[in-house]
Amino acid sequence: MNILLVLRMLSSILLVESASMVPSIIISLIYRDGDTLPLVWSALLILVVFLPVFLFVKPKDRNLRGREGFFVVGLSWLMMSIFGALPFIFSGFLPHFSDALFEAVSGFTTTGATVVVHFDRLTHGIAFWRSFTHWVGGMGVLVLTLALLPKLSDRTSHLVRAESPGPSLSKIVPKMGDSAKILYIIYIILTFLEFIILMLAGMSPFDAGIHAMGTAGTGGFSNYPDSIAHFGSVPIEVIMTVFMILFGINFSIYYFIYDRSWKDIRENEELRWYLCMVFGSILLLSFLLLPVYHSFGTALRYASFQTASIVSTSGFATTDFDLWPVHAKMLLLLLTFIGSCAGSTAGGMKVIRVAILTKQTRREIRHTFQPRKVQTIRFDNRAVDEGMLHSIAVFGFTYVSIVLLGAFLISLEGKYDLITNFTASLTCVSNVGPGFGAVGPAGGFSGYGPFAKLVSCFLMLAGRLELFPMLVLLHPSVWKKS
Amino acid sequence: MNILLVLRMLSSILLVESASMVPSIIISLIYRDGDTLPLVWSALLILVVFLPVFLFVKPKDRNLRGREGFFVVGLSWLMMSIFGALPFIFSGFLPHFSDALFEAVSGFTTTGATVVVHFDRLTHGIAFWRSFTHWVGGMGVLVLTLALLPKLSDRTSHLVRAESPGPSLSKIVPKMGDSAKILYIIYIILTFLEFIILMLAGMSPFDAGIHAMGTAGTGGFSNYPDSIAHFGSVPIEVIMTVFMILFGINFSIYYFIYDRSWKDIRENEELRWYLCMVFGSILLLSFLLLPVYHSFGTALRYASFQTASIVSTSGFATTDFDLWPVHAKMLLLLLTFIGSCAGSTAGGMKVIRVAILTKQTRREIRHTFQPRKVQTIRFDNRAVDEGMLHSIAVFGFTYVSIVLLGAFLISLEGKYDLITNFTASLTCVSNVGPGFGAVGPAGGFSGYGPFAKLVSCFLMLAGRLELFPMLVLLHPSVWKKS
Repeated sequence: MNILLVLRMLSSILLVESASMVPSIIISLIYRDGDTLPLVWSALLILVVFLPVFLFVKPKDRNLRGREGFFVVGLSWLMMSIFGALPFIFSGFLPHFSDALFEAVSGFTTTGATVVVHFDRLTHGIAFWRSFTHWVGGMGVLVLTLALLPKLSDRTSHLVRAESPGPSLSKIVPKMGDSAKILYIIYIILTFLEFIILMLAGMSPFDAGIHAMGTAGTGGFSNYPDSIAHFGSVPIEVIMTVFMILFGINFSIYYFIYDRSWKDIRENEELRWYLCMVFGSILLLSFLLLPVYHSFGTALRYASFQTASIVSTSGFATTDFDLWPVHAKMLLLLLTFIGSCAGSTAGGMKVIRVAILTKQTRREIRHTFQPRKVQTIRFDNRAVDEGMLHSIAVFGFTYVSIVLLGAFLISLEGKYDLITNFTASLTCVSNVGPGFGAVGPAGGFSGYGPFAKLVSCFLMLAGRLELFPMLVLLHPSVWKKS
Repeated sequence: MNILLVLRMLSSILLVESASMVPSIIISLIYRDGDTLPLVWSALLILVVFLPVFLFVKPKDRNLRGREGFFVVGLSWLMMSIFGALPFIFSGFLPHFSDALFEAVSGFTTTGATVVVHFDRLTHGIAFWRSFTHWVGGMGVLVLTLALLPKLSDRTSHLVRAESPGPSLSKIVPKMGDSAKILYIIYIILTFLEFIILMLAGMSPFDAGIHAMGTAGTGGFSNYPDSIAHFGSVPIEVIMTVFMILFGINFSIYYFIYDRSWKDIRENEELRWYLCMVFGSILLLSFLLLPVYHSFGTALRYASFQTASIVSTSGFATTDFDLWPVHAKMLLLLLTFIGSCAGSTAGGMKVIRVAILTKQTRREIRHTFQPRKVQTIRFDNRAVDEGMLHSIAVFGFTYVSIVLLGAFLISLEGKYDLITNFTASLTCVSNVGPGFGAVGPAGGFSGYGPFAKLVSCFLMLAGRLELFPMLVLLHPSVWKKS
């Protein structure tokens, strides 16, 4: 293990985090909300701890191996969350460590599950920091660090691969640092666009900023306890529905649009699966909700918002969907597993994996009656490598196992019912936010004890980092000297 | 498709089913319960339909290809269930087709889920037939047919492979017909042993027969609405616990015992995983139940019975475990997924698959930090072929997908809550029997409509036949002429 390099990367990432507290400090100053100092102290504390490390640790060997890549990613997300929880603690908004950590992890992982009960005590500065973690975590802090400090290491593709959602993030342009910059430019433009349109639809600048960041990172934190239902505005719901669907798409698609590579877009098979799933689910859900809302228009309104919210793993709500009929809830549960496209800011298993696994199941069926025929699986008009297929299949099992084991660990506290604990685990791993029962859209995670909250933190991080960076941290041999 | 061979195999299997109604007819005559004629008519109807087919269809090509193997297995289990439902309909015990079919499928697949509400109307003959389906379905009707008619086809290993639980049933002796005979001899001896011991513990001969067959097939039908709680007897519970655990073990172990191949037993890795899982779960569950039952002895009594019952996928109950604390229920839910050993009469994903998938996950973790090291996975001290590993991983995904899609389809009726519908689907696919909520040990499937019952029938058959024989039936190309 190249400890010096790991330390240097870790310190750079935490310095970027410290800098990312500045916008919240400015917001806090503008609104004079009295929470400026807790934010300043948090940023300074990170600076004091990690600036010396950054300045004095100069690794000679800047060659990052795969092993260190996953390790750095897992460790830096953990540290980032711990230090990102400081403003919540220092401001007294969430005085308990487990609460503050939960909220920070939920923010960075863009889950959007919350332990906040007293939304009235949420000041502008703290609310902004809470939602800014979504925005930073959505695209990835490492990607941001690489965009700012491209010469950090010689082999940064390991890092980006470990942090980016989905199995197939291809470099858009040859240099990883440039790719990171392009991704962030697209991200900023889309976020700013939503911010402007939300203001045009009548949101205050502050609310528009909070909800644009929440949508962009597919996070789901709102500064209102009843989420988007607070506004009761169809235009706002439509805007957010559209942007949630957009942020669930692989960002390289937007680069292809800029680059006018229409052929690449047409041939993108994941995009087709994703759009079929989104619009198919909206239609099906509208029919299932017809007996509840009586008019197809109203049913369509709620169905499209909630489908977009769950598929994109944002987790915003316009109604307490825990009160919906059981078939509608079961559909949302299925969508919670799947999530959105690889290379987006969303969570879940990712459409590409589910699509490829579906093709593998079909192949197994065909194999039973044509055992001798060699059958390759094609995606995006290319044969997929058998090793990749195998990895995806194992990923599928690991994903479900972590959801089930997480549900069991959460249950050990003996609180709530099966469906609450099961969906709590699932919604954490999939980074959606709300589940059903006590963790439904009208509830939250505040009722759990510290143990279940820490387990949930692990599950959210595991889900955001696609399992392995967090599992690697648990593996004893990583901590051995090599 | 070799239609003549398929017809001949199908007719042989149904003639065996017809013959297997004879014991129930005798029981009905002994107890003079008035249900003799419905059983006789059922047996005769099968005879009238399939004896001519058996006598006059003589396929020249007796070479059974893989494709036909899966097809014959899927189709014959479907037909067997339809005709096995006749006694329930003819006797007026379950007059609706969907109810009668559900009960027959639940019997043959050794699920043990029931739609019976009026246990007082269950006559001896019908009760015996209901439990006899467990006994026949446990080891497999095809295996039975092959034991009786070993010269049916030249390549029967396809058939046995498609019907037998688990990925690795090896032939015990070179000839498949002889293997089938040995398996049935072991099966008969163990069942008879339990029958005798249960009588010694105070059960009536009839009850002992019913519960011995239910345990042997790991089915779970009881002739009492409160299952084993009816007897309130510790010795009976202990006997059944031991036998449920025994029937969850790969039957080749018993042949190894007879053959004194101690080395084969010592090296059987699945057996070690299975025993660790069973005794680990019993211990853990006892601790979790301590606050409920106050004494460790009582907690151990309930924990060991219920663990054995769920792990072996029998589904007998000594208490309404739906009222247990949430962590205990979550543990049972996890065990419901896993099930028992391959080559036993039990359902679930099978211990061997879960063990190998766990090893694959560990390998993926190691792979992230040692990407260049080639790592083989060993089981039973042998390297497992990568193709087999890949198939098992895809099986895991398909299994979970079928549970989730099944839960969604069952939900479409709009009845009950999420946990009822989810565990209804899971308990059907895993062939356990009871789930939680309305399908818990105190309830059943009688509240569902015909659609959910037919979906459940498909799920039970898919679970029993390890998914692919049933999925093959749904595949359009199977129905095309080749």
